[in-house]
Amino acid sequence: MTATIPGTLTGEMLIAGTPVRGAGTEIRAFNPASGETLEPAYRHGDATHVDTACAAAAEAFAAYRSTTSEQRAQFLEAIAINIEAITDDLIARAVAESGLPQARITGEVGRTTGQLRLFASVLREGSWNGARIDTALPDRSPLPRPDLRQRYIPLGPVAVFSASNFPLAFSVAGGDTASALASGCPVVVKAHDAHPGTSELVARAITDAVATSGLPAGTFSLLFGSGPELGIALVTDPRIKAVGFTGSRSGGLALVAAAAARPEPIPVYAEMSSINPVFLLDGALNSRGAELGTAFVGSLTMGSGQFCTNPGLVIAVDGPGLDSFVAAAAEALAASPATPMLTPTISRNYTSGVESLSQEAELIVRGQAGSETCGQAALFTTDAASFLASDALQAEVFGASSLIVRCTDADDLRAVADGIEGQLTVTVHADESDLDAAAKLLPVLELKAGRILFGGWPTGVEVSHAMVHGGPFPATSDSRTTSVGSRAIERFLRPVCYQNVPTSLLPSAIADGNPDKLWRRIDGQLRQD
Amino acid sequence: MTATIPGTLTGEMLIAGTPVRGAGTEIRAFNPASGETLEPAYRHGDATHVDTACAAAAEAFAAYRSTTSEQRAQFLEAIAINIEAITDDLIARAVAESGLPQARITGEVGRTTGQLRLFASVLREGSWNGARIDTALPDRSPLPRPDLRQRYIPLGPVAVFSASNFPLAFSVAGGDTASALASGCPVVVKAHDAHPGTSELVARAITDAVATSGLPAGTFSLLFGSGPELGIALVTDPRIKAVGFTGSRSGGLALVAAAAARPEPIPVYAEMSSINPVFLLDGALNSRGAELGTAFVGSLTMGSGQFCTNPGLVIAVDGPGLDSFVAAAAEALAASPATPMLTPTISRNYTSGVESLSQEAELIVRGQAGSETCGQAALFTTDAASFLASDALQAEVFGASSLIVRCTDADDLRAVADGIEGQLTVTVHADESDLDAAAKLLPVLELKAGRILFGGWPTGVEVSHAMVHGGPFPATSDSRTTSVGSRAIERFLRPVCYQNVPTSLLPSAIADGNPDKLWRRIDGQLRQD
Repeated sequence: MTATIPGTLTGEMLIAGTPVRGAGTEIRAFNPASGETLEPAYRHGDATHVDTACAAAAEAFAAYRSTTSEQRAQFLEAIAINIEAITDDLIARAVAESGLPQARITGEVGRTTGQLRLFASVLREGSWNGARIDTALPDRSPLPRPDLRQRYIPLGPVAVFSASNFPLAFSVAGGDTASALASGCPVVVKAHDAHPGTSELVARAITDAVATSGLPAGTFSLLFGSGPELGIALVTDPRIKAVGFTGSRSGGLALVAAAAARPEPIPVYAEMSSINPVFLLDGALNSRGAELGTAFVGSLTMGSGQFCTNPGLVIAVDGPGLDSFVAAAAEALAASPATPMLTPTISRNYTSGVESLSQEAELIVRGQAGSETCGQAALFTTDAASFLASDALQAEVFGASSLIVRCTDADDLRAVADGIEGQLTVTVHADESDLDAAAKLLPVLELKAGRILFGGWPTGVEVSHAMVHGGPFPATSDSRTTSVGSRAIERFLRPVCYQNVPTSLLPSAIADGNPDKLWRRIDGQLRQD
Repeated sequence: MTATIPGTLTGEMLIAGTPVRGAGTEIRAFNPASGETLEPAYRHGDATHVDTACAAAAEAFAAYRSTTSEQRAQFLEAIAINIEAITDDLIARAVAESGLPQARITGEVGRTTGQLRLFASVLREGSWNGARIDTALPDRSPLPRPDLRQRYIPLGPVAVFSASNFPLAFSVAGGDTASALASGCPVVVKAHDAHPGTSELVARAITDAVATSGLPAGTFSLLFGSGPELGIALVTDPRIKAVGFTGSRSGGLALVAAAAARPEPIPVYAEMSSINPVFLLDGALNSRGAELGTAFVGSLTMGSGQFCTNPGLVIAVDGPGLDSFVAAAAEALAASPATPMLTPTISRNYTSGVESLSQEAELIVRGQAGSETCGQAALFTTDAASFLASDALQAEVFGASSLIVRCTDADDLRAVADGIEGQLTVTVHADESDLDAAAKLLPVLELKAGRILFGGWPTGVEVSHAMVHGGPFPATSDSRTTSVGSRAIERFLRPVCYQNVPTSLLPSAIADGNPDKLWRRIDGQLRQD
């Protein structure tokens, strides 16, 4: 693939390999750092584009799912190589469209290609097949046991909704797309309006990889469109069999409702909202309250606070340790510059979210003010009873705003832990002297979050095998999975059992002699022979 | 536990170990074989009973989920032993309440205790923990990798709805209960009105095992009640975190809708309806059409056809082989005696389902007539175009009724395969000469069913590791799982990630040194050291 410079962006969708210009609402990327509107213009697609993309995906499914794990691994690697070939242009465009710092976007390119390669390794390792064999017991009494074999197969075409805040890692070639393609499912992406140029560049990288890998063109499509119209048309198309989404609670719930109302309901993996509570235990606070306060503000204000895992809630027992924490946090926050938010809409929502908080909680300090499109950080405080009585104080405010809940004692803190909604993460800061208290808290926190951190801050999400980026509702619509890490492939698979199927017809994953050299569960025991 | 004779049945619910008499609608078991109404009377519970059971389950959850795998394995074995201690009484009562033959019920007792012991073995083997560790990389650049560990934890209290047709294996101590208890979830069962005495006996066996195992009483409760009232109250109770159901499509969809409308939606595993297509390929038909026809009727009429996996649809290409099949099936069916159906309601529904079929398909033959509560077998035929144009012909008729679709050629047969809804099973009868045709058909069938059989009949469901009793909608509400076999435990679990959690606080499944000797995925590789 030759390098693509931003000037060559065409403003088109890419439907099964074919560039298609939309005829709906015109959208243009906006550079929140400079205030510039960017060329070219894009236009929203409509239901006919959904139909074309879904028809192509459905047609591609049979051939695409019959590729070998190795073929799909090479395909994912080809996408990564294509992305790397346009890294400079991609970074420039993504920085311009997001207002995020270049270093952050550079890291995100690496995360995106790393994610694709992780799934290539998952495919080659092969456990994703879920292979199981129960050997026949022809002489069993009173009834013989048949030969039973099980493997996973992909669900079918998957709709992926890009997020605003990670224009690469949770967007066109992000984790949902990578895991769905890995599983053998064609993908139809609805791009996020905030970064259409980045989306086009990445979609071209995927489209090129589809072609050079000899895959059916319908394996991938990119659509632009509105959520309530094109998005719902996509989720309700009968050929779509699963949905991946990262975004707001209202957006996620709308897709969940649409999917549930289909004649054939389908799973929706919506990663929605989380305020990522941070518990500061007494020993940690007393030994290093000020240090924690400064570090907390670093995590809170990073990327203008636009992370799903932003620490929007701090819980601790009142005392001099907490006073030190608050003083240091207030000092750091007061000095923190306002930084651009991703879109004017996100900026407005942040401003109104902060206003809502200020109705119910006491303001400690604001960060530096900036232009209208910048987010001015905010730190509030309240007591446990007020927090527990208020839905508004538990609602996510997307941006660099956080709330400190001052508890009177350990029971009060425990009541807050019991009262919080489902979260992506919960963080605990604990010293040696806190371990007994932490041991009592841990079983409560396990029921509240997909990931529990001791020390550090929740804003880094490692892409690996043990990561869980998920959690109980409303953090996600399905707590049984993760959208980051290798287990994400499981979202798009279902098991099939083959009973007494003739040897010559058995898929290689469950064939005699284990030709794919997989770990398989034979009569209940894991074996690789 | 001392043996309990049917005369000692008290007609009470068992809520967290306490017998409680309902005050609602009076129900009595009915012996469909003799026409007798059985003592004692039971009464439906109401929302207050749901509240008590769910409060106890929620309270029990923390202690119950903190038991070791070995403790839960012994608990499941204790239930099995208690059931075995009352086998004779249980068989007598279940035969009386179901009208099913004693040999069938005897087998079902063994299946039920075998199922409990299978999950005990799953707990001891330990892979259910899903243990994963990504080791820390403190020197990684640009950012270090934290220590990340993942394990599964149980979702919380589970509501189980008993089925009518397996008064033991899919009822109070059936697969849903066994797998939920294995996972660490307390269980609240809504009994089926058709076998209250059997339900009470089994509930006592579980309640006794709860007590002797030193578990919290709320680990298990048994309620009687109506589906639309008590059932919906149970599914919408905020303390219930998942639902297992086996029954009708309308019943299952009502629970799915109620669960989706909760403030916190929860997963519903509803196994609903399936007509279990049987494809007869040319070679098999031509070599042994008559033999297959006779065997087919044996599967169709077993247990009055009251199986989720009953073969309600036969698809083949017209010709002398199919003629032989139909002639033999017609002869066998005409001679088949009418046998009791489980309840008068099921019998009435069967009669009206057969009437509906007779409006749209051609009757080949009926079985012997019997009393009002018996099911008179029925065999219909139609052509492919008529079948594909009719929703009624695809609807499940619960009982010994089947429809033969005569196709003009292989393309016609393929069109029927493409057009069928999701199924629990699809069966193919193929000889050597059919293997090419079968190879083309297999990829289509994989998308339609949870289990694909070559040869035999779908009515036996092995309880093992590779079994899938599930399938695409409307066979189930969630095709990603199975309700029979060891993988069923996964329905009630979700992953949690532990980041830099102090060694002393780590659960043993993911502790250093692998104290539980589990298979764990370390940096992506399965290891047992």
